[in-house]
Amino acid sequence: MTILCLDIGGTQLRAALFDRNDRLLQQKRIPTLAHEGRVTQRIFDLVADIWPSHAPVEAISAAVPGPITPAGRILSAPNVPEWQDFPLQESLQKRFGVPVLLANDANLAALGEWQYGAGQGCRNMLYLTISTGIGGGIICDGQLLTGSEGLGAELGHVPVSTEGPRCSCGQPGHLEAYASGTAIAAWVREQRAAGRATALTGPLDARGIAEAARRGDPLAREAYERAGFYLGLALSGFLHVFNPRVVVLGGGVSQSGDLLFVPLRATLAQRLFRPAYLHTLRLMPGQLGDNAGLLGALVLARQRL
Amino acid sequence: MTILCLDIGGTQLRAALFDRNDRLLQQKRIPTLAHEGRVTQRIFDLVADIWPSHAPVEAISAAVPGPITPAGRILSAPNVPEWQDFPLQESLQKRFGVPVLLANDANLAALGEWQYGAGQGCRNMLYLTISTGIGGGIICDGQLLTGSEGLGAELGHVPVSTEGPRCSCGQPGHLEAYASGTAIAAWVREQRAAGRATALTGPLDARGIAEAARRGDPLAREAYERAGFYLGLALSGFLHVFNPRVVVLGGGVSQSGDLLFVPLRATLAQRLFRPAYLHTLRLMPGQLGDNAGLLGALVLARQRL
Repeated sequence: MTILCLDIGGTQLRAALFDRNDRLLQQKRIPTLAHEGRVTQRIFDLVADIWPSHAPVEAISAAVPGPITPAGRILSAPNVPEWQDFPLQESLQKRFGVPVLLANDANLAALGEWQYGAGQGCRNMLYLTISTGIGGGIICDGQLLTGSEGLGAELGHVPVSTEGPRCSCGQPGHLEAYASGTAIAAWVREQRAAGRATALTGPLDARGIAEAARRGDPLAREAYERAGFYLGLALSGFLHVFNPRVVVLGGGVSQSGDLLFVPLRATLAQRLFRPAYLHTLRLMPGQLGDNAGLLGALVLARQRL
Repeated sequence: MTILCLDIGGTQLRAALFDRNDRLLQQKRIPTLAHEGRVTQRIFDLVADIWPSHAPVEAISAAVPGPITPAGRILSAPNVPEWQDFPLQESLQKRFGVPVLLANDANLAALGEWQYGAGQGCRNMLYLTISTGIGGGIICDGQLLTGSEGLGAELGHVPVSTEGPRCSCGQPGHLEAYASGTAIAAWVREQRAAGRATALTGPLDARGIAEAARRGDPLAREAYERAGFYLGLALSGFLHVFNPRVVVLGGGVSQSGDLLFVPLRATLAQRLFRPAYLHTLRLMPGQLGDNAGLLGALVLARQRL
């Protein structure tokens, strides 16, 4: 039967229909925020819009930008202030009358890459998505790790320093505060304000800094070296703890390629306490791009139903 | 049938026989190191010594001080220099003609505490053993996490700082280098050498420092506050990643009680980025003491056979 998958992102709402053979039948996307209409209502409209007229829908499965409790509540979500401990599962279920599955978007992206992308065939995989923030997903012996309350796999929120810059979550020294796109831009801004030479002018983002780095701007290069160092440092700890076969890096910042991967690999090689952790490891970019979350929602539905 | 369990420690070799109902039939212990006899030979002698004359042994299951490869080789073990990539599983199997199961001692202690001790009934548990070093074991959705090459759950070897003191593994800034018994003693030694006032004289160990702290020695108290801080900091990251229901602290240093647990809990409460991580968490000392590894070996045998 048909599965209706949703990816609820901070900028876009995406919906897709998959048939019983996991073939994509149709997809739609709309902006998450608009002048009128709350996000919940916009999601209802999108689902109604893509709902198939002739085939029954077996379930709705959604990737959500925030942790989900076992009861299907969203504790909070960036860019969606109307969701504070919000019962999204119940709301969708009541409105559409089919089972609803929800999971954290980074967790589902991990599941998607594991089943259809970079992690196919392995039993232990770590997924990091590096964009505005840093999210994570963990496949542990063939199972998605969620923790006892659905709050696990927050790989951006591990301390790599006792103090250090404040993370978006308010804590000091988290990986996300050193290596997310936001952190890369904040560091360049700070260095520029302190008088460091750079060709970068005006407002800054991680993509613009990557372009400047490719043109040889030393401050921009250093910004990616620094982010790569902290990612490599945190990853050394993750390898000691999980000993995965595959590590997948997704998200916009990971598309900076060698700028990030070279210092990351160098740090990792230096900071592992046994070379054996690297012997069978594959460290690679994600293969599914923006579709990882939607495909992960499909995998979740197939696993649960 | 009878299971012969071994706990191969740095100072003691222990063996125990359990019957089909998991009742302890007999146990023996001898020192690991002696003037004559290599450790492997001493283990053979101990096993032969406790081998039951009337009941068949179904398997030998052993807790080993070091990581085990999937092929049953010990990469290296503290205090046992003769083991460098040593095929212990094969050696025992050849000598005694029964199946042999091996696992890391901290992993098995976790399994023991989960089945028979502090973690009974939960699906997600984290175990830290704090003594000379810091070891770990992780029960993830009811399964022992070992990683793809048996090198996982090294919870002492996560970086909590970019630089910092060298760990026993050679890397800077690992949790073990801040919060193990060795690290606590090294820090007090360093502070004393730098002229800090303390009643502590002569050689130092974590137990003696705990006693001095209880008598009010300020440097000794500070040493445990510092260790508790770093444990709490690292644990905040572990909770964000694993979201366990139970955290169990074992090993000699954990027996210092409030000296360690008070600063640890205070740091944890401060450094978690959502209070929800604490809502259902139980943080407690191990209940099985020295028997955790042996009982874990029994659990492993029951799971695998």
